[in-house]
Amino acid sequence: MEVRPPYLIFLGDAPDDLTAKTGHGIVNWRPQLALAQSRLPQCKADLGIPEMSPQEAASAGARTFVIGTVNFGGVIPPEWTGTIVSALEAGMDVASGLHTPLESIAPIAEAAERAGAKLLNVRHTNRVFKTGTGVKRSGKRLLTVGTDCSIGKMFTSLSIERDLRQLGVSADFRASGQTGILIAGRGVAVDAVVADFIAGAAEWLSPSADEDHWDVVEGQGSLFHPAFAGVSLGLLHGTQPDAIVVCHEPTRKTLLKTEIPMPSIEDVIEMTLRAGRVVNRDIRCVGVSLNTCQLSGTETTRLIDETSARLSLPVTDPAKFGVRTITERLLGG
Amino acid sequence: MEVRPPYLIFLGDAPDDLTAKTGHGIVNWRPQLALAQSRLPQCKADLGIPEMSPQEAASAGARTFVIGTVNFGGVIPPEWTGTIVSALEAGMDVASGLHTPLESIAPIAEAAERAGAKLLNVRHTNRVFKTGTGVKRSGKRLLTVGTDCSIGKMFTSLSIERDLRQLGVSADFRASGQTGILIAGRGVAVDAVVADFIAGAAEWLSPSADEDHWDVVEGQGSLFHPAFAGVSLGLLHGTQPDAIVVCHEPTRKTLLKTEIPMPSIEDVIEMTLRAGRVVNRDIRCVGVSLNTCQLSGTETTRLIDETSARLSLPVTDPAKFGVRTITERLLGG
Repeated sequence: MEVRPPYLIFLGDAPDDLTAKTGHGIVNWRPQLALAQSRLPQCKADLGIPEMSPQEAASAGARTFVIGTVNFGGVIPPEWTGTIVSALEAGMDVASGLHTPLESIAPIAEAAERAGAKLLNVRHTNRVFKTGTGVKRSGKRLLTVGTDCSIGKMFTSLSIERDLRQLGVSADFRASGQTGILIAGRGVAVDAVVADFIAGAAEWLSPSADEDHWDVVEGQGSLFHPAFAGVSLGLLHGTQPDAIVVCHEPTRKTLLKTEIPMPSIEDVIEMTLRAGRVVNRDIRCVGVSLNTCQLSGTETTRLIDETSARLSLPVTDPAKFGVRTITERLLGG
Repeated sequence: MEVRPPYLIFLGDAPDDLTAKTGHGIVNWRPQLALAQSRLPQCKADLGIPEMSPQEAASAGARTFVIGTVNFGGVIPPEWTGTIVSALEAGMDVASGLHTPLESIAPIAEAAERAGAKLLNVRHTNRVFKTGTGVKRSGKRLLTVGTDCSIGKMFTSLSIERDLRQLGVSADFRASGQTGILIAGRGVAVDAVVADFIAGAAEWLSPSADEDHWDVVEGQGSLFHPAFAGVSLGLLHGTQPDAIVVCHEPTRKTLLKTEIPMPSIEDVIEMTLRAGRVVNRDIRCVGVSLNTCQLSGTETTRLIDETSARLSLPVTDPAKFGVRTITERLLGG
């Protein structure tokens, strides 16, 4: 799945900036891809980049119209259709991370057909993968894993990629979910792959590389989540990581959309290392990433210090303090 | 996925009885479903049931023409097309566990269309599943798990179902793979489900039931196999088993199609119980099923005794000694 840059990022009628999180993610992590934004009149989100119509953006070189808004239920509302059709008529591809396939909306399918443009539903995949082999690949891999879903794995992975590059280390973020794919411009939504091929898709996602190159693979789900653990385990086996970083949200009490208590960070480390040894005997945990947005400054500092002392690992909140302690541990041996 | 009985079982040009293993499985485990067999002239396999042409079988009440042969690569050879078309013209559905979708062969697709008959590719699934919930269901469940793929999980599950029924216990085999589905006449090929829905499909497969009913769920893959562990874990979480039985082949040195050493039975018990506790705190191992077809009688007895003493569990080879020691442990508490 490849999304051609640069992008015109469409925010639709997003009522706030949180709803436009895909757009903000692109501007934050890949500003060079974000040529301009396009918004409907009632939109309250703003990416702080130039405003252009689809025609203006296409003339300025934009190649893909990216839907940068995540709305409830993942549907494409009828009010967006006119703008999406204009983008196709202006010659751009259209990329969406929403559940509704773009081609299921007749005017969009017809406009794409007329223009010979691509409709990219990054949440789905048509690619045929092989089953996993477990054969060791060259290069190095880090996988972010979580005590739960939606807990900061993408943000942590992008933070580590950025920090490694700042340290002069060859590193690539490898996207395994729809938002990550739109940010990186490529990747595979592993939860949309047929079950038999999860590990094979993960092997494809982080291929053989130079010995000193790090692929930073975005994790999915949690080995402890009753709905998504299969995806997490397939991704772990296919990635065959040398290093893992555990992501956690300290105020969450139960696993997403369940009444099952959260596992401890220790549980996740032990289970991940144990399962990961099947494909990489040298797998190790190099840090913990806490999402402390619900905590005060004092609470955050105390929790980080306590957790770090308890686990003898670097612990940080990437959004507040960066990830240098983790990358130093990673590169230090 | 429902396959309507009774069946005309088609063996094609199977060179031996091993190739006709699906047909033999149906006759062995569900003789009441097997009305007759149909074979091409060069066929060397024999199910020991009446021989009928598609027309004769349809007149005698057969409702589904089941392909009972597993051939290398899972393709449907051109020599089979004529007989399959005759079955459709005689008014039967056609069911196949092979990789090639039946409708990909034009004369078969056209004949099904003309006859208004169903083409059932049990290895694929069109059903839309929900994501797993982890919510506890009523009734009891046993899951067979393996140190590896293709190690006797289906055979063990069917043996346990049969033995429980002989003991007067309400029990149902729940098929999770294509051969099992053709034997049971229903089920879901969990490895063909989209990754996000593995656990949800497993929850659907063994629904709420009477408190004293046992669903015996056919396991898939192995938590230690680098290609298929995601399927195994999703199936474990969705099944939320009260009991597991570990299947093992003692002479196998490396995991199927890999160079990775086999895990020990202890490894599999520990990992399965640990992962299974997320959805069922009372999960326990009630026995070990060994496939000892490569061993002599003396070797088999010694290995069973040693393994049983080491693990303090009932250990048996279902094909040689049945599974009564396991069902007694299961029901004994």
